[in-house]
Amino acid sequence: MKRSKISANVIRRLPRYLRKLDDLAYHGVERISSGELGKQMSLTPSQIRQDFSCFGEFGQQGYGYNVEALRDEIATILGMKRGYSAILVGVGNLGHALMENFGFAAYGFHLKAAFDVRPDLVGTEVAGVSIYHADQLAAYLREDSVDIAVLAVPRRFAAQVARMLSENGIGAIWNFTNLELDLDNSKTLVENIHFSDSLLTLSYYLTEAREEDGEA
Amino acid sequence: MKRSKISANVIRRLPRYLRKLDDLAYHGVERISSGELGKQMSLTPSQIRQDFSCFGEFGQQGYGYNVEALRDEIATILGMKRGYSAILVGVGNLGHALMENFGFAAYGFHLKAAFDVRPDLVGTEVAGVSIYHADQLAAYLREDSVDIAVLAVPRRFAAQVARMLSENGIGAIWNFTNLELDLDNSKTLVENIHFSDSLLTLSYYLTEAREEDGEA
Repeated sequence: MKRSKISANVIRRLPRYLRKLDDLAYHGVERISSGELGKQMSLTPSQIRQDFSCFGEFGQQGYGYNVEALRDEIATILGMKRGYSAILVGVGNLGHALMENFGFAAYGFHLKAAFDVRPDLVGTEVAGVSIYHADQLAAYLREDSVDIAVLAVPRRFAAQVARMLSENGIGAIWNFTNLELDLDNSKTLVENIHFSDSLLTLSYYLTEAREEDGEA
Repeated sequence: MKRSKISANVIRRLPRYLRKLDDLAYHGVERISSGELGKQMSLTPSQIRQDFSCFGEFGQQGYGYNVEALRDEIATILGMKRGYSAILVGVGNLGHALMENFGFAAYGFHLKAAFDVRPDLVGTEVAGVSIYHADQLAAYLREDSVDIAVLAVPRRFAAQVARMLSENGIGAIWNFTNLELDLDNSKTLVENIHFSDSLLTLSYYLTEAREEDGEA
């Protein structure tokens, strides 16, 4: 499968499909047409068929998609069955929230360890995951292969920690620091999560609604 | 300006433009062509011109965009100058992280109050914002007009709190609970932030990279 031709828009829709299919399975739906799936996701049926056709044949003309089988295919495509390992760096409020509530395992990730510098945290566990001193991070990465680092340190430390992670062979960084990481000449992948993009989208729609209500 | 025809894809790019323009301004760039902007954002120049043309005339042919003026226009379009008020419901780890680090004011939002049920939190302040008991929330909303509620309660309380917010006239809910809120027949807007979409996108690209490296 030559993946690199697949557009970023298609790829970013895959997790949405996964969520929708999980939801359908939860509600006992076994089979769904591209028309109905499109309706529920505000996509056209042809867009859905096109998206899936990037990855092979998922449905049979006229029979719709088998919800469980399609969910399984998408999970495979997303790498959820590869048993990726993760560490978390920065056990502040956000780091704590991710460790306690995110549920890495549900997405096929094994959160193996967390790192911080605070003496009251080092040596303790959160949600069954041990917290080590950040001084031990480089040595840990050299000994244990780690696929993904969740970066939740204060912004002022972000660049420095990211560079260290990259130099020690981390495959990917899931970046919560709101700093655009500059890892030129590195093979490390970076995915930024920008809370503000989401809030500003909401702000746009609220503004639109207020204007339609004649409050402008 | 008739906004409702503008596609969701364009709207979701606006916060990205804002971030890029902030970054350019920070680095002293005063003017930028659609070509250069496109290059830096992995968009085509014609897509950029098309996006902006939805909102009027922003650039002068051949002169590029004035970074500050364009940033200002986009901020206006996004509703950042409307002085929207916000409250936060659920001061757990994530709620704390948002209050301490998110910087609502930078996006034009005034975070007025927070609500929780924990006795050790009620009556205290986080980052200068008072925490009230959740019992007072409905009364607060009736007295004070609030535009947006940040929903950061545990998932099992999400539906119930969202309904209450909606019934008390909240304009919009920024939903961190990972529960799809069902507010049928309500005018309340909802924007969900799904951390998993971001992680799974990264997981996809990591899988792609590994396959290209021949590890598949």
